[in-house]
Amino acid sequence: MIKAAVLGATGYTGLELVRLLHTHPEAEIVFLSSESYAGQKLSAVHPQFCPQIDLQLQYLNADQIPVDADIVFCALPHGQSAPVVPDLLKRGFRVIDLSADFRLKNAALYPRWYKREHPCPEKLPDAVYGLPELYSEPIRDASLLANPGCFPTGILLALAPLLKEKVVDPGGIVIDAKTGVSGAGRSPQQAFHFPECSDNFKAYRVAEHQHTPEIEQELGRFSGGKVQVTFVPHLVPMIRGILSTIYAYPAGEGEENKLASLYKNFYSRSYFIRYLERPALPETRFVRGSNFCDLACRFDPRTGRLIIVAAIDNLVKGASGQAVQNMNIMFGLPEETGLNQVPF
Amino acid sequence: MIKAAVLGATGYTGLELVRLLHTHPEAEIVFLSSESYAGQKLSAVHPQFCPQIDLQLQYLNADQIPVDADIVFCALPHGQSAPVVPDLLKRGFRVIDLSADFRLKNAALYPRWYKREHPCPEKLPDAVYGLPELYSEPIRDASLLANPGCFPTGILLALAPLLKEKVVDPGGIVIDAKTGVSGAGRSPQQAFHFPECSDNFKAYRVAEHQHTPEIEQELGRFSGGKVQVTFVPHLVPMIRGILSTIYAYPAGEGEENKLASLYKNFYSRSYFIRYLERPALPETRFVRGSNFCDLACRFDPRTGRLIIVAAIDNLVKGASGQAVQNMNIMFGLPEETGLNQVPF
Amino acid sequence: MIKAAVLGATGYTGLELVRLLHTHPEAEIVFLSSESYAGQKLSAVHPQFCPQIDLQLQYLNADQIPVDADIVFCALPHGQSAPVVPDLLKRGFRVIDLSADFRLKNAALYPRWYKREHPCPEKLPDAVYGLPELYSEPIRDASLLANPGCFPTGILLALAPLLKEKVVDPGGIVIDAKTGVSGAGRSPQQAFHFPECSDNFKAYRVAEHQHTPEIEQELGRFSGGKVQVTFVPHLVPMIRGILSTIYAYPAGEGEENKLASLYKNFYSRSYFIRYLERPALPETRFVRGSNFCDLACRFDPRTGRLIIVAAIDNLVKGASGQAVQNMNIMFGLPEETGLNQVPF
Amino acid sequence: MIKAAVLGATGYTGLELVRLLHTHPEAEIVFLSSESYAGQKLSAVHPQFCPQIDLQLQYLNADQIPVDADIVFCALPHGQSAPVVPDLLKRGFRVIDLSADFRLKNAALYPRWYKREHPCPEKLPDAVYGLPELYSEPIRDASLLANPGCFPTGILLALAPLLKEKVVDPGGIVIDAKTGVSGAGRSPQQAFHFPECSDNFKAYRVAEHQHTPEIEQELGRFSGGKVQVTFVPHLVPMIRGILSTIYAYPAGEGEENKLASLYKNFYSRSYFIRYLERPALPETRFVRGSNFCDLACRFDPRTGRLIIVAAIDNLVKGASGQAVQNMNIMFGLPEETGLNQVPF
Repeated sequence: MIKAAVLGATGYTGLELVRLLHTHPEAEIVFLSSESYAGQKLSAVHPQFCPQIDLQLQYLNADQIPVDADIVFCALPHGQSAPVVPDLLKRGFRVIDLSADFRLKNAALYPRWYKREHPCPEKLPDAVYGLPELYSEPIRDASLLANPGCFPTGILLALAPLLKEKVVDPGGIVIDAKTGVSGAGRSPQQAFHFPECSDNFKAYRVAEHQHTPEIEQELGRFSGGKVQVTFVPHLVPMIRGILSTIYAYPAGEGEENKLASLYKNFYSRSYFIRYLERPALPETRFVRGSNFCDLACRFDPRTGRLIIVAAIDNLVKGASGQAVQNMNIMFGLPEETGLNQVPF
Repeated sequence: MIKAAVLGATGYTGLELVRLLHTHPEAEIVFLSSESYAGQKLSAVHPQFCPQIDLQLQYLNADQIPVDADIVFCALPHGQSAPVVPDLLKRGFRVIDLSADFRLKNAALYPRWYKREHPCPEKLPDAVYGLPELYSEPIRDASLLANPGCFPTGILLALAPLLKEKVVDPGGIVIDAKTGVSGAGRSPQQAFHFPECSDNFKAYRVAEHQHTPEIEQELGRFSGGKVQVTFVPHLVPMIRGILSTIYAYPAGEGEENKLASLYKNFYSRSYFIRYLERPALPETRFVRGSNFCDLACRFDPRTGRLIIVAAIDNLVKGASGQAVQNMNIMFGLPEETGLNQVPF
Repeated sequence: MIKAAVLGATGYTGLELVRLLHTHPEAEIVFLSSESYAGQKLSAVHPQFCPQIDLQLQYLNADQIPVDADIVFCALPHGQSAPVVPDLLKRGFRVIDLSADFRLKNAALYPRWYKREHPCPEKLPDAVYGLPELYSEPIRDASLLANPGCFPTGILLALAPLLKEKVVDPGGIVIDAKTGVSGAGRSPQQAFHFPECSDNFKAYRVAEHQHTPEIEQELGRFSGGKVQVTFVPHLVPMIRGILSTIYAYPAGEGEENKLASLYKNFYSRSYFIRYLERPALPETRFVRGSNFCDLACRFDPRTGRLIIVAAIDNLVKGASGQAVQNMNIMFGLPEETGLNQVPF
Repeated sequence: MIKAAVLGATGYTGLELVRLLHTHPEAEIVFLSSESYAGQKLSAVHPQFCPQIDLQLQYLNADQIPVDADIVFCALPHGQSAPVVPDLLKRGFRVIDLSADFRLKNAALYPRWYKREHPCPEKLPDAVYGLPELYSEPIRDASLLANPGCFPTGILLALAPLLKEKVVDPGGIVIDAKTGVSGAGRSPQQAFHFPECSDNFKAYRVAEHQHTPEIEQELGRFSGGKVQVTFVPHLVPMIRGILSTIYAYPAGEGEENKLASLYKNFYSRSYFIRYLERPALPETRFVRGSNFCDLACRFDPRTGRLIIVAAIDNLVKGASGQAVQNMNIMFGLPEETGLNQVPF
C-alpha cells in the first residue's frame, strides 16, 4: 500500500484527492492537513465523507507527516507550496505538487504572470511536468512532480500530437476555454456568489491568464520552437468541467480522417484519452467525475481551419485524478488504478 | 461473479445500474436491452461509457437473455414490467424490478393511482418490497423483488423507526418532498425543458402523487394500523437528489436526543444510513452519487412538532444503488459491496 | 414626481429598488447611498444600469439627502436601519424600511430572534406593517413603514383571508418554504458559493428562522388570537423566487371551490394577487421579475387537509416591488403604478 | 397607437414580443396566433400574462388579422414564414419576420444551410435586413423586414465598425459564440432536457451553423469584399444570453484605445450599444432582459491579436427586442420607445 499525505485537504482539489485515494486499491491516506479546520475530523467538516474517512485534520507541520509516508500531495494554494516543498524533499518524501509553483521552468515568468518572485528557483529544473500521456518516462522517477494546470491539461493533450507531427502551424493558435466554477477554488468571492454567476456567462483575464506561459512552455517542447497562443478563459455556470475550443491552421491539407488516425495512434496506449468519432463531440458531462480527456477535431474546408475540442473534468483529469495517475506511474502501477470511475 | 442482465438500459435508472454494476467487484453485465437504441453499442449512444463498457444493446427478448444470468434488473417504464416479469420468473431468473409494478400489495390501488388495471395481480403477494434496512430477511430469499420508489425510500427510512417504536403519532403526518429533475426520467417533456425548469420551483400532483399509497402501505406495516399521509412533491432545478421534510407530532415528549439515539440504534448495522449530529442537516450534495440516506431530526418546543429531514440521491439509493444493494443481499454479499463511492 | 432616496443602493434589494424606480412614471431617484462603493457612479459598479442611471453613490449621511426628498427607502442590512431611522423621521422624511428592524411590535422578540436589543423600541408602535393587500388604510398615512419580510409576504397573503373568515384552524399550521439564493443577500459566503449551492437542496434554520415571529404576529391579528406555526425554510438553486407550501386543517368542510371563491372575493380589488384556477399551480417563474403573488389551494379529502401554495419573486413582491407599491399608496397613486411588468 | 399582430405567439420569441409590446406606450396587440393553443386565452396557457393580457389565441388565418393592423410580426419557426409572408404583404401589412426566411439575399444558400429550397426567392431582394444600428435608413421604409438572427446580431455589431473603418483584416476571423438554451426554442428535445444540459457545456454544429452565411453576407457589405469566418457555437446551461468572443488581426497597429474611440464614435447615437471601459468586460447578466448589446475589445501585444467580446440577450436584442426597435424606426418613434428596461 502506498502511504499518502495530503496537504490542504479541504480545498476542492484536496477533497477530490481524498475521494479518489479512499477508493484506490493500492493507496492509503495517512495524513491530512488543513489550516482552516485543523483539529476537526474530516467527516465533521464534510459530512459526505462519513463514515468512510475518519481522519483528523492537522496543521501543516512537516514533523507530523509520518516518516514512512511514500508520497506527499501538496494541494495548497498557489504560492504556498514553494516555501514548503524543499523541506519535504529533504525529508525524503516524493512530492506531487498540484499548485503552479513548480510548473514553469523559467523563474522570470513567475513575477510577470503570478505577481511574485519564486522563493526557490533552484528547484525548478528538477521538477517533472506531470502530464502522463506525454511524459511517462520522467514521471516514473520524479522526486518532485508539478501537476499540470486545469486549462493546460486538455489543451496540451489536444495540441501536442499535432505539433509533434508538424501537421499544424504553431503560429496563430487561438484557444477559447470555458471552465466550471469549481476551478476558482473554494473561497467565497463576489464573482462566484450563486446569484452573480448562475444564469450568466463571461470572459475573464482576456489574454492575461496565468496558465498562458505554462501552455506555451509545453507546446514549445513539441513544436521545437517558441509558440505563442491567444488564450481566453470563460466562466460557465456549472460546477465541474472544462471545454476548450482550439483554432489552428493545418500545416498541410488538414484532412480530418488523417488527424483522427493521428490522434488514435498517438494515444493508442493512453487509457484516459478518448477520440470521439463523428458525429460525436465532447461534452463536459461525458467526463464528469472521471479522469478521461475527450477529444474531437473538425476541418472546415471553407476557411481551411482546424477546430479541436477537448473536454475534461477540471477537478479530476485537470487536478486530482491526474495527480493520482502520476502517483500510479511513480509507483509502478497501471496508470488507471483506482481511476476507472464511469463518468457520471 | 453474479451475471446480471439489465432491461431498459438507456433510461436514467438503467444507465445508473450499468455505472454501478461495472465497478462492482462481484458482478458482471451479460445483457443490456434498449428498445430505442437496439443494435448499437452502449458506448456509441452514451460516450461516457467508452471504453469501459462495450456491450451491444438488444431488443427486449427473453430468449436472448443468457440462460445462466443470475439476476435480471427490470429498469423499464412503469407498466411495462408487469407484462414481462412472469415469463422471466418462469425461466428461473431472479428479478429485481425497479418499476412500481410490484410494489403495491393491493391490486385495487393500481387503477386508482396508476390509471390501469394490474395485468398479473396474482404475482403481487410474492413480490418482496426491497427496502434493505427494513426487510433484509425476506430480501435474501426473494425471487421477485420490488425495488422501492425514490420518494418512499427516504421517507420510509425516516419514519419507520419512529412508528415502530411508537414515538410518533401516525395521524397527521405531512411530507413535503423535493426532487431533482432526473426523477422525471429521460423522455424530454415541456415541463423539463431547460428554459422552463431552470431557475424555477414548483409543486406538482399535490396530494395526488402515485407514491402515496406505497408510502402508506409500508408505514402501515410499522405502525400496526392504517396510516394516511399528506404528501406533496416539488421539482427542484437540480439534476439529482431528493430531500424530504417530514412533520409529525411525537407520541410522547419529543426529546430530540432520545430520537437521535433511537435512530442510531435502529440503524446501528445499516451502513448506508447516516444520522447527522447537530448542527448538521442533510443536503442533497452530501449524498450525491452515493447510496447513503442522511437523516436528521429537530423538535420544535414552541409547537410541539417533530421535523425530520431525509436526503438521498434519487438515482442511487432511490433506485439503482438500492437495487444493487438488494442484489448483494440476495446473493449473500455484504450490502455495501460495490457501493462504497464517496459522495461527490 | 416623487423624489426618492435609497440608502444601501448596492445590495440586492437596493439595486432592485433602483431598477423599479427608474422606470416608475411618477418617481425620480435623487440620492443613493452605498458604504462599499461611495464615490463611484452606480453604472460603474453595476454596468447594467448604464446609461440609464448615472447617479453617484454617496456615504450614508442624512445631511446629504436632499431636503425636498419625499421618501427615503432604507435597504440597509438588518440592524443598521434602526439607528438611522429616528433621525430621518425627525428631519421630516417619510421612511420605508426594508429591513426587519421595525416589523415586530414586541421589542422583546428582537433579542430572541435577531440576537440583539432593539435600539429604539419607542418607535415600534408607530411603524405601519406594509402589506398593502391587508393594510392599505394605515399605509396611506404612514410616516414609518416596515416593509414585510420576503417569507412572510406570500405566507400572510395565503393565510390571512382564511383566518379572517375562520375557515381554517389556527392551530397546527405547517409552512414549508423554499427560497432562491438572492434571499441571502449579496455578501459572498461559503454556503452560497456556486459550487456549494448549485445542484443542491437543503433545509436551514429549521423551526428557528427569524421570520417566524413576524408571521405569527400578523396571523394573530387576523385570527383574533395567538397563532403558532411550524416554519421551515429551504434553499433552492435558483436566483429569485419563493414558493411556500402551507398545510392546515379547515375549520369546516374544506370545499376547494368555496375557498377559491373566498380568495377571489377577498382579493377582488388587489391587482397583484392572482388565484390560479385548477389545474394550474403557482411556479416561481410565473412571477419572476414581477410584483405578483400567485396562490392556489387544494383540499385533500383523504386526509382532510388543506394545502395552499403561494409564489412570489422575493426581490420584488418580497421586498422592493412591495416597497414601491407601498410608496404608491402613501402618495395616492394607483398601487400598480410602475409595477406592471409582465413576469419574465 | 400602432396595432400589432403576432403570429406564433407561444414560442419564446413570440412570448417575448407580447411581453415587450404589452408595456410599449405606443403599441397595442390586436391579434395573436398559435397553432398549438388556438382557442385558449394566452393567460390560460401562460399564467405569467394574467391579468394583463387577456387575448384569445387564434389559428393562423390571414383573414382573421384585423385589416387595420399596422404591423405583423412573424415569430413562426424557420421555413414557415416564407409561405405566409407574400400574402400578408399583398394584403398591405408591413411585416417584421423573425425567422431566417428572408435574411439571405442569395437564394442558393437556403438549400445548402437550411436544407430546403426557398419558396419565394423573388421576395428576397425587397427584404430589408433589420439591424437598426447599421441600417436605420432602409429600415424606415421597409415593407418586409428580416429581423437578424441571434448570433449574427452581436457579432455584426462587434465587427461592422472595424471592417468599415478597415482596422481589421477581414481574413482569418474566428468567432467562438456561446448561447443560453432558450436559443433552441420551446420544443422539448433530448439535448435540452434539464438533466442533459444542466451542469454541462458543449460545442455544436462546429463550422456548420446556419447563421454562418448570414454573418458573412453582412460582413461582406462592410468590408467591401467577400468575408469568410470560422464560426463555432456552444451551449451554456443558462436560460438567456449570448456571449461571442471574436478573434481577429488588426489591419494596422491595433491600439486598444483607438479602437475604443472608434466604437464609441461609430455608435455615438446608438442608445443600445454600450462600449465597456477597462477593466469591465461584457457578461450576459448585464444585458439580461434588455435590448442592450455590450461590447469590449482587448489587444494582445504578445500575439498581435484583437479580441472582441459582445453580449446580448438572445430573446431581446437577439430577437424580439430588436423587432420592436425596428418597429419603432418603421413608425417614426425613437428607437428606444418601450425598450428602456433596466437589465435584470
